[in-house]
Amino acid sequence: MSAAKQGGLAEVIAGQTGISTVGKEGKGLSYRGYSIYDLAQNATFEETAYLLLYGRLPSAEELNAYTKELASHRLLPPAIYAVLELLPGHTHPMDVLRTAYSALASFEPEEEGRSALDITNRLIGCTSSILLYWYHYQLNGKRIDTELGNGGIAAHFLQLLHNREPEEEQHVKALDVSLILYAEHEFNASTFAARVTASTLSDYYSAITTGVGTLRGPLHGGANEAAMELIERYSDPDDAEQGLLEALQKKQLIMGFGHRVYSISDPRSDVIKTWSLTLSEQAGDRKLYDISERIEQVMRREKKLFPNLDFYSASAYHHLGIPTSLFTPVFVLSRITGWSAHILEQRAGNRIIRPSADYIGPDPQVWLPIGQR
Amino acid sequence: MSAAKQGGLAEVIAGQTGISTVGKEGKGLSYRGYSIYDLAQNATFEETAYLLLYGRLPSAEELNAYTKELASHRLLPPAIYAVLELLPGHTHPMDVLRTAYSALASFEPEEEGRSALDITNRLIGCTSSILLYWYHYQLNGKRIDTELGNGGIAAHFLQLLHNREPEEEQHVKALDVSLILYAEHEFNASTFAARVTASTLSDYYSAITTGVGTLRGPLHGGANEAAMELIERYSDPDDAEQGLLEALQKKQLIMGFGHRVYSISDPRSDVIKTWSLTLSEQAGDRKLYDISERIEQVMRREKKLFPNLDFYSASAYHHLGIPTSLFTPVFVLSRITGWSAHILEQRAGNRIIRPSADYIGPDPQVWLPIGQR
Repeated sequence: MSAAKQGGLAEVIAGQTGISTVGKEGKGLSYRGYSIYDLAQNATFEETAYLLLYGRLPSAEELNAYTKELASHRLLPPAIYAVLELLPGHTHPMDVLRTAYSALASFEPEEEGRSALDITNRLIGCTSSILLYWYHYQLNGKRIDTELGNGGIAAHFLQLLHNREPEEEQHVKALDVSLILYAEHEFNASTFAARVTASTLSDYYSAITTGVGTLRGPLHGGANEAAMELIERYSDPDDAEQGLLEALQKKQLIMGFGHRVYSISDPRSDVIKTWSLTLSEQAGDRKLYDISERIEQVMRREKKLFPNLDFYSASAYHHLGIPTSLFTPVFVLSRITGWSAHILEQRAGNRIIRPSADYIGPDPQVWLPIGQR
Repeated sequence: MSAAKQGGLAEVIAGQTGISTVGKEGKGLSYRGYSIYDLAQNATFEETAYLLLYGRLPSAEELNAYTKELASHRLLPPAIYAVLELLPGHTHPMDVLRTAYSALASFEPEEEGRSALDITNRLIGCTSSILLYWYHYQLNGKRIDTELGNGGIAAHFLQLLHNREPEEEQHVKALDVSLILYAEHEFNASTFAARVTASTLSDYYSAITTGVGTLRGPLHGGANEAAMELIERYSDPDDAEQGLLEALQKKQLIMGFGHRVYSISDPRSDVIKTWSLTLSEQAGDRKLYDISERIEQVMRREKKLFPNLDFYSASAYHHLGIPTSLFTPVFVLSRITGWSAHILEQRAGNRIIRPSADYIGPDPQVWLPIGQR
């Protein structure tokens, strides 16, 4: 069986999953059977995480208990704060998460009495703590209290980021919806890589650090940061159109458009685009939104490409006051849920993932002693 | 194209490689066209690393310069020593490596002026420093000088481990050969996972931490530790035969036998078995070797399975005085070369690795408000 011609395992079925459907009829997305539109409209991120991890929607009582459990995980071991203080401010924030998760394995290893699911909930609960403790310590030498705040994951993130309780309920809701949209996406590269790690029966932290490292690349999670850099380059829609046409003529890769699996549209883009508009109007500043919309028009006209989730997430995050360098780490905060569901699924029916390769290297060589080379 | 039935991407061609051949005619192994037998017989580990990374054997002058370069990388940034001191002694040594590599990205990131190949050589040179600084600090509170020693990678490792210059030239040679045997193995799980990480155009450290995390599992690199635990269980060959037969009857998985790709034999096993015998006789203690050989006989007779590299590596490492918990990290010290060659190869002809999945989950579900569940 050869997949080498097309490359990248495109359209190769690498296994079975019961977690999500991506790209049914070129455009759909569902988690455990529930449409992403229903979830974005009605659920909270905690409810979505529960659905992904436990396989069904929680009752009101279960959701309440689960939200409290996640909120109980915001304090880190002292040594992790010490490690974070050692990582200089110029560190890529994804490297901060990768290192902190990896180090946490030393203090709270996967073992009897601490399951993968326990650690999943721990990481969902403490990721904002890791990221924003490091951020404020390195930015202004301030050691923040990572346990502050009464709300859920989205409110906690915004509170730690801005050092105050979120004033705009819409801001919390917008981030919550974004976390729902980013939570799970079948055999995307980071999830698939995490499954390969899990398939050797390695521990949960190893699989998660694989996920973080893989998401970091600009062809994957890094795309929302690249989209922001593109949008910020232009002063208005006309400037954007002219600049984009020049970039396309030079065959530059434009991030935030098209998708390996979706062929017609990315359903998540519709949702985040609406939120981006809401936040822009609320801020009384439509500049980035209008530039984004013009870029979308040009890409549809010139390349027949649709925006994916990353594109309008950029302007939405901007209006939430999230620095561009933290866009991909926010993706992690959400995607831990999907990675974890897949790690558990991989373990439940495990076979080590070990493909073959087409050899295109040198023919057998005769050994030459070093003096004769 | 479906590979889901067999699972684990077995026999699915996931891409092309020019680095090694595994299992030609069910048994062969070559690096860049050179037989593993020729390399184990004639080359040093540094020479093999050069071959894998630069694509050809070095001249005497090049090898001399390369060996010196690797030896120049033994000192770590102060913050890395500080991180190592924060990781408690009960940490899994593979977690120590994963965390230290990940943290090193903060101080020596991949950027202009520091290429992936530069970092590869840095990591080959400093892996023994990371591992054994942590080991001695946590074991007896001693801060060792990681720059000690005049020899190559194998001698440096043994010197730091035992706190003295290696007295037995055969010990250095045996470890050197083991590093050659473990250096590269085509699309094994850790290498393939590292390629998936690299395929998003993530940085080199991310791909390497993926490799470490994936190798950690008992179905992969962790197998040499599992083999040691098996061998040590028995008091003599007859005890081993009886115990093994009982384990097989209980359908227990015996580590160190068989292989996804080799169908007839693992050529590396012949080499390390010879070294295991040599070291055993030199030590005047054939107990573990004789037990190993009996286990090999029983596995061939009862299960028609041959030993793979991991099996006789266990008794060989034992005679080098390497603690069992450091077996898999020694594998890393060697395999960094193969991972790095594959990361560079992946980047040279990159396409993001993103397979598809067969959906076997719930049908579309109607959203139920939380009060109605």
